[in-house]
Amino acid sequence: MSEPAKAVVSLNSGSSSIKFGVYRLDAEHRPIHSAGGKFEKIGIAPSLRIATDTGEVLLEKSWSDGAGLTHADLLDFLFDWAHDHVEPHSIAAIGHRVVHGGTRFVTPQRVTPDLLDELETLAPLAPLHQPHNLVAIRTLQRLAPDLPQVACFDTAFHHARPEVATRMAIPRELHASGIRRYGFHGLSYEYIARKLAQIDPVLASGRVIAAHLGNGASLCAMLGGRSVDTTMGFTALDGLMMGTRCGQLDPGVVLHLQRQMGYSAEAVEAMLYKHSGLLGVSGISSDMRVLEADPSAAAKEAIELFTYRAAREAGALAACLEGLDGLVFTAGIGENAPAVRQAICQRLAWLGITLDEAANAAGAPVISTPESRVTVRVLPTDEERMIALHTVRLLTGA
Amino acid sequence: MSEPAKAVVSLNSGSSSIKFGVYRLDAEHRPIHSAGGKFEKIGIAPSLRIATDTGEVLLEKSWSDGAGLTHADLLDFLFDWAHDHVEPHSIAAIGHRVVHGGTRFVTPQRVTPDLLDELETLAPLAPLHQPHNLVAIRTLQRLAPDLPQVACFDTAFHHARPEVATRMAIPRELHASGIRRYGFHGLSYEYIARKLAQIDPVLASGRVIAAHLGNGASLCAMLGGRSVDTTMGFTALDGLMMGTRCGQLDPGVVLHLQRQMGYSAEAVEAMLYKHSGLLGVSGISSDMRVLEADPSAAAKEAIELFTYRAAREAGALAACLEGLDGLVFTAGIGENAPAVRQAICQRLAWLGITLDEAANAAGAPVISTPESRVTVRVLPTDEERMIALHTVRLLTGA
Repeated sequence: MSEPAKAVVSLNSGSSSIKFGVYRLDAEHRPIHSAGGKFEKIGIAPSLRIATDTGEVLLEKSWSDGAGLTHADLLDFLFDWAHDHVEPHSIAAIGHRVVHGGTRFVTPQRVTPDLLDELETLAPLAPLHQPHNLVAIRTLQRLAPDLPQVACFDTAFHHARPEVATRMAIPRELHASGIRRYGFHGLSYEYIARKLAQIDPVLASGRVIAAHLGNGASLCAMLGGRSVDTTMGFTALDGLMMGTRCGQLDPGVVLHLQRQMGYSAEAVEAMLYKHSGLLGVSGISSDMRVLEADPSAAAKEAIELFTYRAAREAGALAACLEGLDGLVFTAGIGENAPAVRQAICQRLAWLGITLDEAANAAGAPVISTPESRVTVRVLPTDEERMIALHTVRLLTGA
Repeated sequence: MSEPAKAVVSLNSGSSSIKFGVYRLDAEHRPIHSAGGKFEKIGIAPSLRIATDTGEVLLEKSWSDGAGLTHADLLDFLFDWAHDHVEPHSIAAIGHRVVHGGTRFVTPQRVTPDLLDELETLAPLAPLHQPHNLVAIRTLQRLAPDLPQVACFDTAFHHARPEVATRMAIPRELHASGIRRYGFHGLSYEYIARKLAQIDPVLASGRVIAAHLGNGASLCAMLGGRSVDTTMGFTALDGLMMGTRCGQLDPGVVLHLQRQMGYSAEAVEAMLYKHSGLLGVSGISSDMRVLEADPSAAAKEAIELFTYRAAREAGALAACLEGLDGLVFTAGIGENAPAVRQAICQRLAWLGITLDEAANAAGAPVISTPESRVTVRVLPTDEERMIALHTVRLLTGA
């Protein structure tokens, strides 16, 4: 990649959606965002929207009779478009978000057949995500066999935590065999840590909790920009309440459902991943926007539990950090739900947070008052950019 | 019970041990401690020790060939002794610790056949405790059918918590059916709250975390002496790391052990209740005293995880209380392990705790310095006394 005029594409592939970013590299191999977008409703009625950073829509398309279109069909379509779009640059590599790197893969990896085989073995640890991540990689191996691909792991950012933060209190042989607290959302937290170091280096050097509150949700305790603990554990099921996932749950509940109520392990898994969280508690929706607009008591209970548990876990992570200097909200809910941010911050006033309500309502970059002992920020995350940076770095050795 | 000269006996019955207290009632029906003790190693080589509050040993006995002695045999022996001991008082009632009262029993209950049947249905929620509690009640129904018995529930103290603290993020029908966070060690916390109100009423009126650290372990957040949240959940498996129990565990681990590693639900349950915690992480012992004396890295790792998680959960409960005024250590480890108290308090210095190291080493009632913003106390718990108080109150209507 010593010649100029290259581009990279970042992919974040789920079961029914694919997020992507397209980046032209400048002369110093820095990825410059050129376009980004998302396929949604794959398998039902796929739609695609591509726009620039400034909001200029480059393409909008939907396939109303496209239920039969596969991830491969849609990625083929995307890469045709991207090929034309980046000209005179040419696509030199593809980076992927891969949720689970296990104990072995703690930095981004160039994709090889052996790597893919190893990553397949980790799929049971993130059954909602890992298989879809890997399908995208295999699809692109077929579509563009000569194009280098890079796997970037959501677990990697948490790798250097103190050992004590990775342990559960189970027999030590199980810990040694890999049943440990990995943590996820690492690409998001790495982006937040990197960005915070640019815009607020003093805060970034301190004790910061990053709150990635999206359909998946977790908190990360960062000390000097490094993860020291996080709320997610062995799987992406643990920690905060999420859109459809339970988060932290007495393991006795799983055993009770099986032993007393006749649930199979599969049925429990489906319930805890897909029918719990905001959806399960409200009985209405997994979408915070829908619940905020709903006047029912059940919707209010779901939101209250979400904020109660977020504040409770923030207290736990403040203990890991031995105090708190900053709180950063990010991801769908974190960036766009001022009432949720307000409820969490009110519960955390005792930690030294004073919210600037007008700034919070406006979604300003800093939403605490100047006097607030803890600085509270809203910082949009950008996992695709982090993937692009890793991909370029790995392929250029930069 | 309007006549004088009555006595009550409190029983806390486990699988291989029975703790008890014998109380004479004074003219105002106040239980005055007369003797207390414990059967140990029931089923192997039972031993019994009975002493007064001041440490005077009243009886020491062991049955080296007594593996065949049942709970009934030993309780029969105990009640013969107690009958003689309390003379000229006579035993008027027996109170029992019963771990689980479910959603229905939120105050002490006079034992009836219907009550026993209902309590049996809760046994799966506390399989290590509830069956043994109920065996003792049934045994005494046979031994002394006319003697009133009272069941005192470890869940009751947590009953009035805010609803949000009782919910897990599972489908709301399951919550409605009783799969909720109950919390345990309630008799211990109620005793602590009551005693604290006597010896330090200002602190008792504030935000206090009580740390019941024994072979079972939990924390309780108390506001004005009432439980507002606790670390244990639906079963006694949740929350802090314990002697042999895992405490908080990613529910995905249970599913992984079953789906990928071939464990049955029974095998997982046995592992999480009996082979995890300090025992599982150290591979050495469930006994903190043994681990503290052990120079191995594994013993240190187990103790470190114990204190790390206790501090992490104290941070979570401080968030529920929106700050902290006091921390009270109790139960076996909490009362007798200064190094463990010190490690937890050091991790919580950011909350305003300054430990008085000499007072801590001596196990003084107050182990924080006079300047410490948070008052830290060591307060021996006495569940038997709390059971006696409830028993007298229920039977006299006092």
